[in-house]
Amino acid sequence: MQPKSHRERPFVVWLGCPRHDGGEYLSDFRNEFNYTILEADNRQEVKEKLPALIARHGPIDAFIVPMSTMTYAPFDQDLFGPLAPECGIITSSKAGYDEFDVEWITSQGIWLCNTTNAIVESTSNMAIYLTLAAVRDTYRTEQTLRNGAWTSVLYPTHDITGMTIGIVGMGKVGKRVASKAKAFNMRVKYFNRHRLSDEEEALYSASYCDSLHALLSVSDIVSINCPLNDDTRNLISTAEFAAMKDGSYLVNTARGAIIDEDALIQALESGKIARAGLDVFCNEPHIKSYFQNSDKVICQPHMGGVTQEAFRLAERECLENIRAYFRTGKPISPVNDPSAQFQKE
Amino acid sequence: MQPKSHRERPFVVWLGCPRHDGGEYLSDFRNEFNYTILEADNRQEVKEKLPALIARHGPIDAFIVPMSTMTYAPFDQDLFGPLAPECGIITSSKAGYDEFDVEWITSQGIWLCNTTNAIVESTSNMAIYLTLAAVRDTYRTEQTLRNGAWTSVLYPTHDITGMTIGIVGMGKVGKRVASKAKAFNMRVKYFNRHRLSDEEEALYSASYCDSLHALLSVSDIVSINCPLNDDTRNLISTAEFAAMKDGSYLVNTARGAIIDEDALIQALESGKIARAGLDVFCNEPHIKSYFQNSDKVICQPHMGGVTQEAFRLAERECLENIRAYFRTGKPISPVNDPSAQFQKE
Repeated sequence: MQPKSHRERPFVVWLGCPRHDGGEYLSDFRNEFNYTILEADNRQEVKEKLPALIARHGPIDAFIVPMSTMTYAPFDQDLFGPLAPECGIITSSKAGYDEFDVEWITSQGIWLCNTTNAIVESTSNMAIYLTLAAVRDTYRTEQTLRNGAWTSVLYPTHDITGMTIGIVGMGKVGKRVASKAKAFNMRVKYFNRHRLSDEEEALYSASYCDSLHALLSVSDIVSINCPLNDDTRNLISTAEFAAMKDGSYLVNTARGAIIDEDALIQALESGKIARAGLDVFCNEPHIKSYFQNSDKVICQPHMGGVTQEAFRLAERECLENIRAYFRTGKPISPVNDPSAQFQKE
Repeated sequence: MQPKSHRERPFVVWLGCPRHDGGEYLSDFRNEFNYTILEADNRQEVKEKLPALIARHGPIDAFIVPMSTMTYAPFDQDLFGPLAPECGIITSSKAGYDEFDVEWITSQGIWLCNTTNAIVESTSNMAIYLTLAAVRDTYRTEQTLRNGAWTSVLYPTHDITGMTIGIVGMGKVGKRVASKAKAFNMRVKYFNRHRLSDEEEALYSASYCDSLHALLSVSDIVSINCPLNDDTRNLISTAEFAAMKDGSYLVNTARGAIIDEDALIQALESGKIARAGLDVFCNEPHIKSYFQNSDKVICQPHMGGVTQEAFRLAERECLENIRAYFRTGKPISPVNDPSAQFQKE
């Protein structure tokens, strides 16, 4: 499938404002492409400015969605209608693409790409941070210190060293969580749709559990590292909490909706789950007040991938996907395949 | 030097209350020793009950000091006078022994032992926790989330991966910090009184800096992991902060007084130090209110070694030191050498 291209230097539009100066890298890209920023802070502005931009400059060949999407989502026909059918590729700076209407985008012959490397280190670091914080109960001890009390040795916690971490989803992030957990002398177990090769299991010192419940029943800490999709929505619900060890810990740096939050709250209140470390929630930013108020929860406002290093890598991944598409007809990390779609028709 | 022993089964007294049931291990120990607990919550109670215990049961052969020492310290002639000169060995559950009057204890022919392994994992885990928390600014983001705001991608921080960590004091804890930092793809540099062997440097992927200032000038994060003594008191003061990189981070899990806290506050306020992760403070528990109030500080109330796992290991180290002393005349991890003292005289 040839790239759709409407001019010598394809017209690339970046939504919002790129945060990190790419220096020489970006100036090289601008020599190769006709690159413009669509300044819009929210969905309504996009809906007004996108058709106007196209009316003024002609069809957009490639469109870049930034890391921060809350004020724009969802990315569906209602928002992206003006891009079709001329646009060849949409690249998202994020790893998760649950905000995109992939079916509609594919039906318009448009490639959709996520980033698959940019947030791997930052997010797995957040998972280890939340693991340490949950097990060592650092929120509560920091609060008491700041409030003038000195708890010190009155309440020794457990320590993560020697514990078993159960990784749900052994993709790029899960594998890095495994490597880092290993450095703390943790035992690493995992559950994944596909079992890793013997070589990979040895590399990550990770042993496979052949069901989710088998993993949950042997883990002191459960770390959620799978994507959100129809198979994983509410993956961890009442029956799964029941399968977990008494007094175990849950860490989620993937997507909030993978966990049934009402069931989690019940498990925290019953003591089944000692503490949870949560970077992601259902219905962000309007999260359940329980999570804001509980000292059984270590919480972060979806900061897993929010580092300057991840942003810089994500921007490069977006641009490299566009470059590859216009050079070869196929991007590097597509989440759909519009060429198959067209072959089918 | 023969162990001082006043009866067939030496009289061992444990100050406060051991926290963790040693099970079979402890019952073996009790078969070998005459083991008693001195119930006292504070210094005044020790001063009343210790002479009374000795009057009732005779001289104490071995004395165990627990992890929690705040209400008893300092351990000097005023407190321990009644132990001398009959007592052969005092074992402390802690790694640091700056609260002990080593000179006086040695002058009485008493061995003093610290624990050297018990808190290594727990404390190095705390150092990694504080490193992650300081660099990722988690205190501030968690507070804003709990206060109802959703900062998310507005303020991307840096990430520890790829950063250089400078370890001051490459003892047991420093080495474990190095190993763990390596798993995050950090560069590891260190300064120590003695350079490690080539083999050890390779093992920890750590490169040596031949002065403290050389280390400070190349480190994104400085981790303090040396003991507190006359050489290290105020080790990090105005000139050292000036030598550090602009916007770098400081983590201290060793002892508060290694850092000149007024100089640290100045460095935080000027932005020279972006954030600090502090588990230890001068004058605990009466710490400077700046540390309680600043969002440039991640703080913990000296929780580095406060885990059930570390307590259990510490209690065993105390008992093993006592066992070794009465079997061989020399404990395993002494911090002084009263036999040399006596030879000199």
